[in-house]
Parts: sequence; C-alpha cells; structure tokens
Amino acid sequence: MNEFEIIEHFFKDAYPTSKGDLALGIGDDAAIINVPDDSELVLSMDTLVAGVHFFETTAPEDIAFKSLAVNLSDIAAMGASPCWISLALTLPDKDLDWIEKFASSFNTLAAEHSLVLIGGDLTKGPLSVTVQIHGINPKGKSLRRSGANPGDAIYVSGKLGAAAYAFKNIEDSILYPAATEKEVQRLHRPDARIKTGIALRDVATSCIDISDGLIADLGHILKASKVGAELELSDIPYSDSLKNIDNELAIELALTGGDDYELCFTIPDGLPEAILEEFESICPISRIGVINNKDALLVLKKKNKEIHDVTSLSYSHFV
Amino acid sequence: MNEFEIIEHFFKDAYPTSKGDLALGIGDDAAIINVPDDSELVLSMDTLVAGVHFFETTAPEDIAFKSLAVNLSDIAAMGASPCWISLALTLPDKDLDWIEKFASSFNTLAAEHSLVLIGGDLTKGPLSVTVQIHGINPKGKSLRRSGANPGDAIYVSGKLGAAAYAFKNIEDSILYPAATEKEVQRLHRPDARIKTGIALRDVATSCIDISDGLIADLGHILKASKVGAELELSDIPYSDSLKNIDNELAIELALTGGDDYELCFTIPDGLPEAILEEFESICPISRIGVINNKDALLVLKKKNKEIHDVTSLSYSHFV
Repeated sequence: MNEFEIIEHFFKDAYPTSKGDLALGIGDDAAIINVPDDSELVLSMDTLVAGVHFFETTAPEDIAFKSLAVNLSDIAAMGASPCWISLALTLPDKDLDWIEKFASSFNTLAAEHSLVLIGGDLTKGPLSVTVQIHGINPKGKSLRRSGANPGDAIYVSGKLGAAAYAFKNIEDSILYPAATEKEVQRLHRPDARIKTGIALRDVATSCIDISDGLIADLGHILKASKVGAELELSDIPYSDSLKNIDNELAIELALTGGDDYELCFTIPDGLPEAILEEFESICPISRIGVINNKDALLVLKKKNKEIHDVTSLSYSHFV
Repeated sequence: MNEFEIIEHFFKDAYPTSKGDLALGIGDDAAIINVPDDSELVLSMDTLVAGVHFFETTAPEDIAFKSLAVNLSDIAAMGASPCWISLALTLPDKDLDWIEKFASSFNTLAAEHSLVLIGGDLTKGPLSVTVQIHGINPKGKSLRRSGANPGDAIYVSGKLGAAAYAFKNIEDSILYPAATEKEVQRLHRPDARIKTGIALRDVATSCIDISDGLIADLGHILKASKVGAELELSDIPYSDSLKNIDNELAIELALTGGDDYELCFTIPDGLPEAILEEFESICPISRIGVINNKDALLVLKKKNKEIHDVTSLSYSHFV
C-alpha cells in the first residue's frame, strides 16, 4: 500500500466526505467547512512524540486514544462542542498491523464524539502524532482563562494524581507499587470532560484543562485573569492510590503531576445548589479554593494554616 | 527559557491575539475565530520531517519557509485566501539560535501573506514541523479536483523540474551539475501561487498543486473528475537547467520530480484572450494538454505521436 491507499483504507473510508456543515472531507488539497453563522470556531493543536509523551512500548491503541483525547480536552476547556479533526501521523515504517490498531482506536473515539476526520498528512519519520481539532460554540460563549474574579470559587472535576502515579509506577514499580488498572487507564486514555465543559459554558468565569498539573494550569488562569488564589490542600480530590503513599509525595503528584486532563474552573460563589447538582450528575466536582485579588499569587493552605506560596508560573518551585 | 517563554518571545509577540475575525489567538487552551458568514473555511495540514522532506543540513530559515509555503500552496490550489495558521514544532533541543532563525523566517513569510499564527505546540523530539493552515473563500467558490470536463484545456503555472533538479544536484553534484541559485531556491523556498489561485477561482473547473509531480497530481484530478487527459510533451514548460541535460531525464524530472508547488488546473477551452492575459500578468502559464472522456487515462504525446500511457495513479510506472 502507498500513502494514499493507507489513508483511504484505514482512515478515509471510516468518515463521510460531506456531512452537515462539512462540504468536503479527506481527498482534495484541503477540506471545506461551512461554520454555522451563529457559531464561533474553536481550534487547538497538540503533538505527542514517542519517548517523550508516551513510552516506546505504549500500545498503538493507547497512543491513538491519547492523541485525540488531549485535543478533545482543550475543546472541553473552552466549553465547546468538538466537530472536525486533522491528523498528522509520522511513522518510521509502513507497519500495517500497527496502523490498523492505531486507526481502529482513533476512529472509535472519534465516532463516540461524532467527530469527522477531514484531512492531515501521513509521513515517514520518527513516531509522532499531531492532531488539530476544531469545535464550535455559540458566538461569544467560549470559556477563557482570563475571566476569573475575586470571590469566585475554584473547582476541579474528577480526581487528581492518577496519571502521574501510574507514570511513576511504570517507570519504577518497586518505589511506586500497585497503580490500579483504572489509574493506568487515566494515563493512557484520559477522559476529556466535554459534557462538563458544555455545562459550564453559561456558568464558569474561567476554565482550563489540567495537562501540566493543577498548580501550573491554575497559574495560567491567575496570570490571564490578573487575580490570586487560595487553595485548601485537604479539599483537593486525591486519586485513590495517593492515599496509600507518603503525604507530601501525594500532594506533589496531585498538584504538579499533570496528564490528568480534568478541568479546573472558577464560578461565582453562591450559585444555586441545583446548578452544582447538575454538574455532579455529569461528573464529580470538588471545590478546592477561592479566587482573590492578589495578582498571580497562589497560596496553599493546610487546614487553614498557610504553608506555601507559589507564583503563577513557578510550579517547578513547588517542592 | 521554558516552553511558554520560547513561544511568547519568538512567536506570540509577533502576532496580534485578536484582529478582525480572530477573537482569540495564542495563549489559551484554544483559539477562537469568527468565520465571516459569506465565507467557507478551507483547511489543510502538512508535515515536513528532517531527513525525509529536507536535508539534515538544511538551514532553519529554509525549513521554516518551506513548511509554511507547502501549506500556502494547498490553499492556493483551492483558490482561497490564507488567513490563520497553527504550528506544531518538534525540536531535539532548545537551541535558541536555531529557533530564532526559524521563527524569523516563518514570521516574515506569514506577515507577507497577512497570516496570523493562532496556536500550536512546541515539543521535544526528532526535528519535524507540522502546519495547519486555514483560509477562506466565498461560499461555494473553492476549487476542487473533481470538476474537470472533457474538452477543458490543461494548464500549469511557472516552470517544472527546478526543485527536482536542485535536489539531485545537492545529492550528487557530479552527475547533476550546476543547478542555478534560483532553482535551489525553488526547492527550499517554493513560491505558493496564492494570487494565481484567487484569479482562477471564477474560471477554473479543477485545480491541484504539484507536490508529487505533474503526472501524479494531474492523475488525482483525472481520478476525482472521472476523465482522461492528453499531454503534449513539447508544451511542458521545462525549467532552464533541464534544457542542458539528457532529454529523457529532463522529461522524467519535470513530470514526476515533485516539489515544484506550481498549480495544475483545467479551464473551459476558448476562454477570452483577455482572461488568459490577466493570468499571465500574475505569473506565466502554459497550456500543456486537453481533458478527454477516457476515465483516468493519461496519454503523453511527443509532437502528436503517441509515446506513453499512464494510469492516473501509476506515475511510478513512468520510466
């Protein structure tokens, strides 16, 4: 099979070449989309590189899932609905078995979100995957990092630290024993919080997905919104395995580990209980702190006793 | 400098974060675009990998130029106006001097086309560059591969074979001497035919850019349009250096060499001379053959004597 035959067999045939707002999909010099008049287009691009973002031994199905999921997560953080994707896949050789497994997993996750693959590139080289994702939102409704206000409550979805713990466990199973299968799954197959993002669209004042760790990513919100934050460490939703390890290490993994792809968002304090319950019906959320007016200053408290200051970008200072 | 500082210093600061239809540029989880109501969005993505699409010794300025130019060329082939780009740059190390040269060339070419860089990713790994480009066209006006009709004249812009010859010259300067500096430039810094594409928007019945070679790319038009073609070899606009080499090799380089990034297009025969002259005022064009109703069959003629049949996809059969 040559490049065109591989694309056609494993990818193109799995998607319509025109559907709804998609005027032209895979197979020309470019794709053509008619973005609905009442919508704004929301775009993000992420690359995963072998040996850097995933292990050389990671299964093709997991690489495919994660490469799409991390892009879905960016769309979730904007409160948008994902629609169209481009895939740039660089492979060291034409291993059709590997490509079939990759494509099967990629296409399945795409189908679950009603995404259409509209183009991309298949090239020879060291293994890496770049996905560009396009979503839509009602005009002016996209969530940004810049809208947090003093007094807003800070929330995160799900639990934190599972992916970081699973990563440590794969690297060193003696020092970091027994990550649950579910936690390993969180590393390889993160669950982009699309539904939560859409539910937050009319409520949250800011939102970000946690890819680099809570401290780093909340730091981006603080910097963009020109506000500060106070977090209560005991309110952080630690992942189950972290409860069995040294407390300081658990805090570090949950706050700086990254790869969780949960959402961190701010909402005005005192929202009706019904709205919070609606969020809870989609996925668990935890109130972890409050926004204040101290520009880009992040304070971590432990049962109300101040223990650490970190500036918005200095998550590496957190030890 | 960390990832964020590099992006900010070398890329983000060179572009507006909001401008016209761009609501939000670099710096959030995703960018936000308001595509004009009367426009369709035209999207393409291309990857260049070190050692595959460019030499390990190619200058960062040339890599940057080409990575953007090949994407611009896809937009040109659709007759569209380029607007927004995402850049996924994978680098083996943080060589700030290399990054500065790359960024300077990339940003300069982007500025020449009034493009705004709206996002992307900077990752560690073997050198590769993926660009996703977004253009717009009046709704329904994008050129496709599928519209060629029997009787249409086949044209190409510029001259063919320069990039392929320059490539051979770099690989083996004894066997392939003296590519002109202009020809080497065609390999490293192809000139995307944006203005020609836009001028063709209301006239051409099909269009493609020549990235894989004339035979292969015209073959895509024939397959998509379910038509055949007859080319007159003496009408091919051979690049200057090809005139000094063996005639058969010249034909091979011009017809299968690729990397020219000229446009191949079809227009109804007998267009008013004034329209053709308008094209010529933008860049030279050459009439090289005619579309017929023989499904995907390509016939090459030499001064009206039939010399070779090639099917639409079998350009590798051309020897």
